[in-house]
Formats: sequence, C-alpha cells, structure tokens
Amino acid sequence: MPSRYPSFRCSVPCLILLLQALFLSRAFFAFPGAPVSYFPPNLYPAFQDVNHMVIFGFGFFLMVLRRYGFSSTGFNFLLVVLGVQCSFLVEDLLKLLRIQHNEFGMQSLVRAVVSMTAVVISTGAVLGKANPVQLIVMTLVELIIFHVSRWINSTFLEVPENLTFMHVHLFGAYFGLAVTSCFPEPPPGLDKNRSTPKSELFSVLGTVFVWVFWPSFNSILLESRWEAALSTCLALAVSAVAAFMLSALTSKDGKFRMAHIHSAVLAGGVTISYTAKIIQYPWIAMILGLLGSVISILGSHCLQRCFNPPLKLQDTSGVHFTFGLPAVLGAVAAVPLRVVREINQWSDLSSLGYLTFFEIGAICQTISTALITGLITGLILNIKLLKAVHVSKYFDDQFYWEVSFQMISD
Amino acid sequence: MPSRYPSFRCSVPCLILLLQALFLSRAFFAFPGAPVSYFPPNLYPAFQDVNHMVIFGFGFFLMVLRRYGFSSTGFNFLLVVLGVQCSFLVEDLLKLLRIQHNEFGMQSLVRAVVSMTAVVISTGAVLGKANPVQLIVMTLVELIIFHVSRWINSTFLEVPENLTFMHVHLFGAYFGLAVTSCFPEPPPGLDKNRSTPKSELFSVLGTVFVWVFWPSFNSILLESRWEAALSTCLALAVSAVAAFMLSALTSKDGKFRMAHIHSAVLAGGVTISYTAKIIQYPWIAMILGLLGSVISILGSHCLQRCFNPPLKLQDTSGVHFTFGLPAVLGAVAAVPLRVVREINQWSDLSSLGYLTFFEIGAICQTISTALITGLITGLILNIKLLKAVHVSKYFDDQFYWEVSFQMISD
Amino acid sequence: MPSRYPSFRCSVPCLILLLQALFLSRAFFAFPGAPVSYFPPNLYPAFQDVNHMVIFGFGFFLMVLRRYGFSSTGFNFLLVVLGVQCSFLVEDLLKLLRIQHNEFGMQSLVRAVVSMTAVVISTGAVLGKANPVQLIVMTLVELIIFHVSRWINSTFLEVPENLTFMHVHLFGAYFGLAVTSCFPEPPPGLDKNRSTPKSELFSVLGTVFVWVFWPSFNSILLESRWEAALSTCLALAVSAVAAFMLSALTSKDGKFRMAHIHSAVLAGGVTISYTAKIIQYPWIAMILGLLGSVISILGSHCLQRCFNPPLKLQDTSGVHFTFGLPAVLGAVAAVPLRVVREINQWSDLSSLGYLTFFEIGAICQTISTALITGLITGLILNIKLLKAVHVSKYFDDQFYWEVSFQMISD
Repeated sequence: MPSRYPSFRCSVPCLILLLQALFLSRAFFAFPGAPVSYFPPNLYPAFQDVNHMVIFGFGFFLMVLRRYGFSSTGFNFLLVVLGVQCSFLVEDLLKLLRIQHNEFGMQSLVRAVVSMTAVVISTGAVLGKANPVQLIVMTLVELIIFHVSRWINSTFLEVPENLTFMHVHLFGAYFGLAVTSCFPEPPPGLDKNRSTPKSELFSVLGTVFVWVFWPSFNSILLESRWEAALSTCLALAVSAVAAFMLSALTSKDGKFRMAHIHSAVLAGGVTISYTAKIIQYPWIAMILGLLGSVISILGSHCLQRCFNPPLKLQDTSGVHFTFGLPAVLGAVAAVPLRVVREINQWSDLSSLGYLTFFEIGAICQTISTALITGLITGLILNIKLLKAVHVSKYFDDQFYWEVSFQMISD
Repeated sequence: MPSRYPSFRCSVPCLILLLQALFLSRAFFAFPGAPVSYFPPNLYPAFQDVNHMVIFGFGFFLMVLRRYGFSSTGFNFLLVVLGVQCSFLVEDLLKLLRIQHNEFGMQSLVRAVVSMTAVVISTGAVLGKANPVQLIVMTLVELIIFHVSRWINSTFLEVPENLTFMHVHLFGAYFGLAVTSCFPEPPPGLDKNRSTPKSELFSVLGTVFVWVFWPSFNSILLESRWEAALSTCLALAVSAVAAFMLSALTSKDGKFRMAHIHSAVLAGGVTISYTAKIIQYPWIAMILGLLGSVISILGSHCLQRCFNPPLKLQDTSGVHFTFGLPAVLGAVAAVPLRVVREINQWSDLSSLGYLTFFEIGAICQTISTALITGLITGLILNIKLLKAVHVSKYFDDQFYWEVSFQMISD
Repeated sequence: MPSRYPSFRCSVPCLILLLQALFLSRAFFAFPGAPVSYFPPNLYPAFQDVNHMVIFGFGFFLMVLRRYGFSSTGFNFLLVVLGVQCSFLVEDLLKLLRIQHNEFGMQSLVRAVVSMTAVVISTGAVLGKANPVQLIVMTLVELIIFHVSRWINSTFLEVPENLTFMHVHLFGAYFGLAVTSCFPEPPPGLDKNRSTPKSELFSVLGTVFVWVFWPSFNSILLESRWEAALSTCLALAVSAVAAFMLSALTSKDGKFRMAHIHSAVLAGGVTISYTAKIIQYPWIAMILGLLGSVISILGSHCLQRCFNPPLKLQDTSGVHFTFGLPAVLGAVAAVPLRVVREINQWSDLSSLGYLTFFEIGAICQTISTALITGLITGLILNIKLLKAVHVSKYFDDQFYWEVSFQMISD
C-alpha cells in the first residue's frame, strides 16, 4: 500500500519536531538561573539501573512478535526519550499551578523515567496495532493524565508523593487496555502475531534485565532504599519460582510455557511495589510475590478464555495479567499492611477508617481515570487524521522500517 | 514419547511447591523480630553486578547447544532463585548448630548468590542431560554439601570465612563432573549437541557479561574491595589476550575457535579468585591470568582427547577446563603466595608448615568431597523415581517447553 | 585459499605473545613498590559502566555485517584487552619523559579504557577489511600517536588533562578514515557487506548499551561528575528524538532506517563530550544534541553520495558521520561556550584571543595528526609482511574463525 507511506513522512517528523521545539523552548524559559542540581548520594547508579530497565529491558521484553522486532525496541526507545521530556513539562506545569519553585536535577530525571513506565506498559497492549503517530499522541495524553491522576492522589487522597509513582503499573495497564479495546481486532487467520523461538529468546533477554533491575526501580524514589530493594528481591525470587511451578501445572503436557514465565516472573515486583518500603518481615514479601505470580498465571488463562473474546479485546503482550492484575493485588494488599502498621501508633479507630477509605479511593480513582481516559484516547486515536493502520498490516515491521533484505526469519 | 510428559506435570510443580513452602515457613519462623538489615556502604551496586552475572551472564553463557536455548536460560534462572532460598536455609541451620544469632540482610543474599555459582557451574556439566527434577534435586544436595564443606574448611582448616566461598568454582566443577559421569553417554551420531553460530553469538553475549562483572564477584565478600577488583581486572585482561593467542596456536589452520575463547577468557578470573585480596604486585595477577588461560586451553585439548573418552565422560559445556583446572591452579598458587606474605611477619617455620598443610588440606578436602558426593548424587539422580530422560531425548528444548512453532533454526 | 591460513597461525600468536611479554615485563619493572591505588569514591561503578560500554556495547554495535558477527565482537574484545595494556605502557613512557612518578590504580585503568575508544572507533572504519595482524599493529600505532597528540594538546595548547581524552572520537574517526582509504575497495557485486535484520537486532542491542552508558563515559574523568552526566543525558535524549525525526524525513517512503538510528542516537553524546562539564543551562545541551543528530544524518547522506565515491573510501560502519562529524561540531561549539564562560571573569580581550587560538589549534592538530599518521599507518598495514586479505575475502568470519556448521543464516 505505497500510497500510505508518504503521509507518514510528513506526520511523524512534524509531530516530533513540534514536540521537541516545545520542550526546547520550555528548557530555555523555565530555568532562568543555573539549574538546581542536588544529587542524593548513590542516586546515579540507581538511575542507570532504571534507565537500563526501561529502555533496554522493556524494549527487548516487548520483542515477542516474530516480525515486529525493530518496532518493538525502536518505538519503545523513541517514546521513552520523547516521554521523559514531556514528563518534565507536565511536572513543571503542575508545579506552576501549585506555586512551587522549579528545580532541575537527577531527581526530576528519575521521576520522569519512572512515569514513562506507564506509557511503556500501555504500549505493550497496543503493540503492533498502533502506528508511530498514534503512539506519540497516546504518550502525550497518557503522561498528562497520569500526572493529573497522581496529583489528585497526592493532594486529595493523601497518598505520599513517592507512592503516587508506584501507581504506574495500575494506570499503564488499564489505560493500555482501554485504548486497545478501541482498535479493530486482527483477523483470526493472521499469523504475524505469533512468536518464534528466536523472538522469544530476545524477549527472555529483556525480561531478565527487567527482573534484575526491578529492585532498583522499586526503591529509587524512597529515602531508605535498601529495605525496599531487599523486599523486592525476595518477592521477585518467590515469584519466579512460582512462575515455573504454575506454568508446568497449567499448561498442556506439563511443559513450561515461555509466555507464562515472561509475565509471572515480573508479577512479584509489581505486587510489592506499593508496600516494599513498609514490609517488615521477609515472609510477607515472599507471600506477596507468590500471590502476584499466581494471579498472573491464573489471570492469563481466565482472561484469554473468558474475558478478552467477548470484549473483542486483544492485549498483544498481555499487560493485563503481567502488570494490571498483580498491581491491583498489590494495591489492595497494601491496605491491611498499612492499617496493621498504623494500629500500633494510633488508638483512634476513625483515623484508621479514613486511612482505609483514602487508600481504596486512590486505587479506584487511578483505575477509573485510566479506563475512562483510555477509552476516550482510544477513540481519538482512531480518527482519520491519525491514519490508523489497516488490520492486515498489523504486527509488521515492513510498514514502518526500511528492512534491508528480509524480516527476522520465520 | 507423550506418555512421559504427564509425569513431569506432577513431579516438577510438587517438588517446587514443597521447597517453596519450606522456605516460606522458615522465613516465617526464623525472624521473630524485625530483620537485622545492616548494609555495608556500596554493597548494593556490587550485588546487582553479581546477580546480573549469575542470572543473565551464566544463563546466556550456557546457551551453546543449538536446540537448548530456552532450557539453558530458563532452568538456570529457576535453579538460581530456588537455590538462593535454599542457601539461606542451609546457612541458618549451620548457624543454629553453632549457636550463632540469625541475621538477615543484603549480606546473606550476597553469600547465597555467590554459593549458587557452584550449582550453576555443575549445571554446565550435565547441560542437556538432566531433566528439571534431577536438576532441582542436584541443586539441593549440592548446596547442602557445599555449605558443609565450607564449614569444615572454615572450622577445622582455618580458612577465612570470605575465602571459603571462593571454593565455589573448584567444588562446582568437580561435583558436576562426578554427577555427569553417572549419566549415560549420548550416541555418537546425535547432532543436537552441536552449537550453531547463532547459539554461539548468544553465548558470547553471556560470556562478555560474566567477564565484565567478574571483578565484582571476586571482591564482593572482601573488606577492601578495590585492590581485589583491580587485580582481577588485570588477570582477566591477560587471560583474554592469552585465550586468543592459544586458540590460534592450537586450532586447525590457525583460526580462532569460539569455544576456546568462551572458556579461556574466564579462566583468569577463576585462577585469581583465591588470591585477589593478597596480591600486591600487578605482575603476579597478570602471570596468574596467563597461566589460567594456558591451563584452560591446553586442558581442553588434553581432556577431550585423553581423559573424557576412556572415562565415558561428557562434560557438555566444558566446565572441567573452564572452571575446574584454573581453580586448581589458583588454589595451588595461593599456597606460596600466602607463605611469602606471612614469612615477613613470622620467623617461626613450623607455623608456616601448618599454614601450608592447612591450605593444601582445604583444597584436597574440597575436591574429594565434591567428587565423592557428586558420584553418590549422580547415582541417586538416575534412580527410576526421578524419571531420567532417555539418551535420544537429550539436548532438546521440545521435551520441556511448549515451543510455539519450530526450534531455534538450525 | 588454504595456503593462507598457516601463516596466520604463526603471525597472530607471535605478535600477541611478544606484546604480552612486553607488558608483563613492564609490569614487573615499573612498580618496585606496592602499587599506589588511590580510589576516588564511586569510581568503580562508573568504571564498570565504561568497561561494559567499550567491550560489550561497541562489540555488538559493530555487529552490522551479516557474516561478520564473531569477528566484530571477538576482535573488538581482543583489541580492547591488548590496547588497555598498551595504553598503560605508553602513558608510563610519557610520564618518564616528563619525570613524573608512576602510579597505578583504578584511575590508570579508566584512562586506558577511555583511550581505547579511539581504536574501537577506527576499527569500525576498517571493519571486515583488516585481518587480526593488521588490527593489532593499527592498535599499537594508534594508541602511541593518540597519547602523543594528547600530550601535545596538554603541554603546548593548554588543553586541560581531562579534556584531552575527549578527543578520542575526533582522533579515532579520522585516523580510521585515513587507514581505510589505503585499503582496496570491495567489488561492487559483493553482498557480504550488507546487514540482515538479525545482525541489525544485535547491533541495536549494542547501540542501546552504548547509549545508556554514555553519560558515565563523558563524566568519568571529571571531578564534578553529576552535572556532566545530566547534560549528557539531555543531549542524548534530544539526539535520539531527532534521529527518528530525520530518519523518517530523509529516507524513501518516510520509513525509519535502522542504520540512521544507530549512528544518530549516539551523535548527541559525541557532540557534548567536550562541553559536558561547562554547560550551565539544559537548553544548550539539548541544542547540541539536536545539532549532533542533524549533522550525523545529513552527513551520512552527503558523505555516502558525494564524498566517499570519488575518494574510493569505504567506511564500513560509518564512523565518519557517527563519530567524526559530531565530534568536529562539538569541538567547534566548545570554543564560543568557553569564551562566553571566561568573558565574565576576564576583561582582557587578548587572553580571549589566545584561548580561542589554542582551542582551534587543538582541534586542527588532532585532526591533522590523525589524518597524516592514519595514512602512513594505512600504507604500512598494506605491505606484504602483514598479509593483507584479498578483496574477495572481505567481511567473512570463515576466514578467521572455525565456524562449526554454517554462518549466521542469511
């Protein structure tokens, strides 16, 4: 369909240029003085870990489709570098509204990269179906809404600033699901949305990276980083063990299925992200990791059979059970854990009630905001202006990349 | 052989579940109070390095067989996360016997990951021949025996606590060899135990990771980490240079052989692991690296021609010459180095005699324990209950994994 | 051509052996006392980053040719480990001339690895055309000349010691170009110098590694590392955004071209390397990153059409537009930035003139030294003694490696 291509030539570069000009002018005007660059000790190595995890790890983690390797890593890279700058801008505007002073330093960068995880997760849901223009628009809208949702959580629902960032998994997964539900379903005969052993090996490579760096991700925004990192390590270890166990239990012939391993090994890290800081006993972290893995694998079976087909939902890389369900579990589990922790200090039952109410309120607010705005975004993305790709061209690198010779061999 | 599969469905998950329940209950009962989590400064980045090296590096390092990529990385991952928890348990029990207090923190985690290297190395020897049940049983037995051997070294042979962990290479390699000698040899016509350029590229990827992170591995348990890291860097550099030199010298037509490079570049790191702390002059580190590489490549030729065929030994990924021989060399070289160091402080010759005797005793104890218990473990692994795989099914992912379409293309 | 192989068997190992013996004896004689090993805090993690970037990142970054994967990573590895030791030796000799004291520690290692980047970049220009003997000779000559050029810059042109190392990109690219111009051009029908999607995926993997670790590279030799790292992050981000934008604008059909992305995402890091320390406003870093990316992609079009064909130049992995042009831009942009910075302190216009003169002098000296000595080196490399490879054998692993079965599948 060569008539399609010239349009991308204009739209993608123009959109990027416009955004980059905006970010540049913001950088020019926002910092009249020298940047305030305070660096908490030891932040840089942790920032490198998170950076590596988001750009390299998720880039290769998403490389599950056999003909979509370039786009998986390439677009992930593009969205992260665009989104990080966009995240600066949004945070600036929010600070301006609250008359806070601007500061710029490694901390801002870290917060921006952590926020981007929401977008990266959403990208996984529409993987292979959205074109670059749609992805960029989605990134912008999602980041703005995520920061607004975060601001509501922090201002009205008294969620600590650090913790609001841990809603990225919840927000990203449900936003992505809502967006993907607006895209037409690929025809059943299409075989480009399969994986090959080779593409899965690259995906394993990315998964292991994400797994190894997850403790840094969960602890980077906290004051006392080591306890959180240690709890996350334990949760991830149990989660990985449970992933193998459940994969063999639930699959045909008792064999392991790589797709299960991919999603379930990470589930523990997602589950514990809300509570890594306050967990005092190793066994709680381990239980959370186990439950995360269980809900991820059972979820993958239930959702793919009972939930997705009637809703005509196609969640390409399974973000619902990899990030969505474990995040719900983690957020819900955080409520009793925090109540138990507070109960020792307070005797006032009504304060506990408030606490519980606010915690649950924050979860509901995040999910509902993500679903509603995701649906609206999905509808916007499919207007004619953004040149939605035809279903038959889904999951194909050749549509976006000059492929020198042939695709990744089938 | 479809009749085989359903049995794995029960045995693997049950075994994993049992173990995980054990680890969970231990975590529940062992820490009545809040965990003591003291963190030496800068330990976390080094821990990340070692974690990355063991899970990612060794996982891909072992990916040499052309049809065994999923199992190489996947089982390595499973064994590490299971083994780390098992290692906690064993260390706890040993501490209980010596009436030491329990503590839990990053230090325990680091010691557990370092101990796991022994298992990872042994896995390399039985790569493609043992099924997951056998591998898990082997992991448990090996970890218990390794910690007992370590305890003997530390209690009776006065090896410093830190140094007892550096026997992992020696112990892992000879334990693995003894285990693999109990497995039936694959038929000579089998071509699944070859490597392809693609599988070797992934293996190079893992090797480079292991190589880069080795200085962190050698120095992580020491007080003064930088000197040890620096000595290891030097040994590894000379080792890599010598690997290329010897590979071109000994192979047909003077070409390089990737298998040589794989094993010999790491040999320097193994050789220096016993003495990284006490080496005072860079040239000693360099000589050790050189000798490690020489013994590894010469060993690979001798062993594969003269030693393995009469013993009907098949050491799939060559752990004998990659880790075994360089570790013997390093342990033996440590004796004169330590004697020379002590000679300046003491004038008492009999003390030096004791020292030498203890050093050599520790080496002999480690090797003989590894060989004897390895043989017994190998015999246990081949009982009918553990469902040993038939020789014709060796080296094949399809036996353990749901492979979506076709194997890694030949 | 089997008659060729036995000659490599002698020449490569002998050359390596000779060099290694030299390095060993230097290590033996140069440090009569215990090594002075002072470690600036937090240097080791940054060193690991740079090490990883040079060995792993560049090794895979160079893996663009479809039949040259083993040689790309393998020879890169060999040259780095040889070159680092060679760099020690050269720095020692230079210090001896200036009657400075010898010291050895992590700092020397860091400087040696950073210097090696020049050689790694030059290797990219002759990739697939030079045999190992030629590459090793080139490494030695280039390192010696680079350190001499660095010494001239630092002694006569008053460039600060730290900054002299940042000329690696400039020196490496033009030295490599001059060397490659002396090699005969491959015949036009040869299809081995193409890339396949698979080789490009591995190359993406390396590129992302280099990209992520570049902030550590730019900041490792500085006192105040965080500002430089932060500026580099910004430049790299804008550079990556611009790479996608320009790739879609300039390529056929408005598709992205992976080769553009490879080179242009790194251009920002190269451009800012001279000024990362002194940049005070984020927007300057962003502008530099943008310009680096623009010059890299426009350069790639101009050079491949107008410059390379008449000069019969074949720059295999495009080091001219990936490292050369952005480095020129960065070096030139450093002049006004430094002048503006000094203008606040001095009122003396003649001092500013001196400063400008010295800055531009350093650039010209580096480029001209690189070009002249590169040409001479190129001529030396093609003498009969070094057994230059015939043009028909270019870009082929089989000539240097025992390839077990078949090459990386086409």
